[in-house]
Amino acid sequence: MAQKMFISNANQVITMAGHSDTPAKKEKMSKISIMKHGSIWIEDGRIVEVGPDEELREKYRTQIEDAVQIDATGKIVTPGLIDPHTHLVHAGTRENEYAMRLKGKTYMEIMEAGGGIHATTRATQKASHEKLYEESKKRLDKFLLHGVTTLEAKSGYGLTLEHELKQLEVAKQLQKDHSVDIISTFMGAHAVPMNEKKNPEKFVTRVIEEMIPEVAERKLAVFNDVFCERGVFTPEQSKRILEAGKKHGLIPKIHADEIEPYAGAKLAAEVEAISADHLLKASDEGIKAMAEQGVVGVLLPGTAFFLMAEFAPARKIIDAGVAVALSTDQNPGSSPTISLPFIMNLGCLKMEMTPEEVLTATTINAAHAIGCADEAGSLESGKKADITIFDVPNYLTLSYQYGMNHVDTVIKSGKQVVVGGRLQ
Amino acid sequence: MAQKMFISNANQVITMAGHSDTPAKKEKMSKISIMKHGSIWIEDGRIVEVGPDEELREKYRTQIEDAVQIDATGKIVTPGLIDPHTHLVHAGTRENEYAMRLKGKTYMEIMEAGGGIHATTRATQKASHEKLYEESKKRLDKFLLHGVTTLEAKSGYGLTLEHELKQLEVAKQLQKDHSVDIISTFMGAHAVPMNEKKNPEKFVTRVIEEMIPEVAERKLAVFNDVFCERGVFTPEQSKRILEAGKKHGLIPKIHADEIEPYAGAKLAAEVEAISADHLLKASDEGIKAMAEQGVVGVLLPGTAFFLMAEFAPARKIIDAGVAVALSTDQNPGSSPTISLPFIMNLGCLKMEMTPEEVLTATTINAAHAIGCADEAGSLESGKKADITIFDVPNYLTLSYQYGMNHVDTVIKSGKQVVVGGRLQ
Ligand SMILES: [Zn+2]
Ligand SMILES: [Zn+2]
Repeated sequence: MAQKMFISNANQVITMAGHSDTPAKKEKMSKISIMKHGSIWIEDGRIVEVGPDEELREKYRTQIEDAVQIDATGKIVTPGLIDPHTHLVHAGTRENEYAMRLKGKTYMEIMEAGGGIHATTRATQKASHEKLYEESKKRLDKFLLHGVTTLEAKSGYGLTLEHELKQLEVAKQLQKDHSVDIISTFMGAHAVPMNEKKNPEKFVTRVIEEMIPEVAERKLAVFNDVFCERGVFTPEQSKRILEAGKKHGLIPKIHADEIEPYAGAKLAAEVEAISADHLLKASDEGIKAMAEQGVVGVLLPGTAFFLMAEFAPARKIIDAGVAVALSTDQNPGSSPTISLPFIMNLGCLKMEMTPEEVLTATTINAAHAIGCADEAGSLESGKKADITIFDVPNYLTLSYQYGMNHVDTVIKSGKQVVVGGRLQ
Repeated sequence: MAQKMFISNANQVITMAGHSDTPAKKEKMSKISIMKHGSIWIEDGRIVEVGPDEELREKYRTQIEDAVQIDATGKIVTPGLIDPHTHLVHAGTRENEYAMRLKGKTYMEIMEAGGGIHATTRATQKASHEKLYEESKKRLDKFLLHGVTTLEAKSGYGLTLEHELKQLEVAKQLQKDHSVDIISTFMGAHAVPMNEKKNPEKFVTRVIEEMIPEVAERKLAVFNDVFCERGVFTPEQSKRILEAGKKHGLIPKIHADEIEPYAGAKLAAEVEAISADHLLKASDEGIKAMAEQGVVGVLLPGTAFFLMAEFAPARKIIDAGVAVALSTDQNPGSSPTISLPFIMNLGCLKMEMTPEEVLTATTINAAHAIGCADEAGSLESGKKADITIFDVPNYLTLSYQYGMNHVDTVIKSGKQVVVGGRLQ
């Protein structure tokens, strides 16, 4: 017998319907499809129907009493949030560097002194599979408590074949064990290892000839990402790495134009990347190329907030026709938060995005940024029943009552995994 | 028999000891007194002793098994947070105005069109005691969930004797019923009522001759506050209102220099206010006068964040020798958040305060700003056992893992009121 669930009478059901084929661009980012007094009928972990409470109550009246019933009166219901850019699997934290930064050191200074990404690389290399799994699982639990039901997770703190595989294996194991869906990205080209700084080409060759084939062979990743930035990987190196990934079936992603203009956005369009991320300094030409090619722009305002830097020009990027998604960029150096709802606040208050746009950017557009819009990111018949219920009377309150986590209930594939703000 | 509690083995107990007589200024704001592997022995709702876990465990060994035991291993313990500036008691929300603002309207434009503070005044005047009580109680519960055990609450949305008294009566009732301690401020001079804009003097006279005496007579407030800002109350009017309050035993507070320089900080020193709040545009002269007089500066960075405005010059104010406290400014127009932990994040990331300074500013200095430092704000023998336990390994993580609520347990007067992030 089918497992049934009835979520009833929400103040607002934000369905995000109609954007599953193509990411929402420009004014379409504001079309979030709000149903008042809406309900959802779920069977076997999938959405069967979204409709007005009275209608569904009548239609399913003979089955309601056998269903799990969730009363959403006074609350709002959205698609489970999707975080399209995280460095979930890593060991250790770097709050000491943060304290140094508050006393005036820059992120790049700390990195060049062997801190920064290299500190996390050392910790991650040293960590056992079990330790990495435990630390990452705790973070995953917090993502769930903040309403996230699917996220992307990158490798890139291993920087050797062995340790990159270890990170990806941990993500694979968590994908099996944990409610949150994890979509993996290989990011061997996250940094040039300390001991190869003098000859980065050797490392690039190893990424291309040794790591990519093995990761692809083992089916450990869907995407291939590279940190294209001065002092890390050049656009030319980035291109070779991304093209090599494509030959092995890995779809390109790119950390682009975060610190200075470096042609990353343009490269994203050229290699047909699924997304280009950061984009603080992207050129107008690069943004135009992304729009034409249909590359999703993933903006990471938490990183700017935490690094006390400026924010990506979201308005310009949206107005140019790029479909925008938002993400935490969760990582121990430049964005330790696990709250995607807070990232939505920053979208409104620091990047001039509207409350409707930030919802699109953390649901259906985020799904498009990681290739899962056929299954997630909106509340439509046939999709997975991944649903977040917020204890607010309307969606405006999500960022109006800023800096708070309003998640009440989270449903993953039709199962209640968070109730009353607590893990089940 | 005494009610006993033993909080044991915290990674860090932040005691804030040594600042109960005088608020912490300058480098003293960084002296937060950290005890590693610390424990606390509590009897009858009061702190008896704070000390190393091994020592206390030995000293109280015959009594521990009869005590309520809280294992704080891996966590940190701080004084219960204190929010020294809120507009807790009000009716309704204004998320629609927020949406208007995101589309380009200014706060002052909305206010002049009869929105803003006047919208909340209409709603609050209309609301029954019961409705005001219910709405405010919900907010108070959320304050508790964010680690706050004492807060200040202002009237000022009534603007007539009847409705100002109603707000203060609701605060008084909540003080009796709710775990959070509420210290009341009369703020009849929060705005000139819409229908008296042409003759504000008449309203000032009513505040002085009608409202202040009645509020004082009924012992409904400890403080008397005024919104000294161009277009609201002049420094001269503010002074008369604050002096009138003093004659009736009400201690002055002042909303000073928020939108433009208006001599508010200087006035605060002149009338010997206990605090001057906002201070974004305070003159150097005013800041110096505050430092000399010992007026606490209450900064409200959430308001700047939410209004997308600039932040108060915290560094300059601290370096000038003003004891600084931080607050949410919780109100439906310019700062709807209820998260004091998030305000601490803003202190670090937007006002260049250190993690130590923001802790001082939300505990002992906040207590001084509302005159309760003899009873609260630090973990010292004899004080009320108002304690917050955060699920983080060290205090740096409170703002390192930004935008999140890390409160695990809250103890109010020796009673567990929040456990595992949930109200008891
Ligand atoms: Zn990243
Ligand atoms: Zn105020």
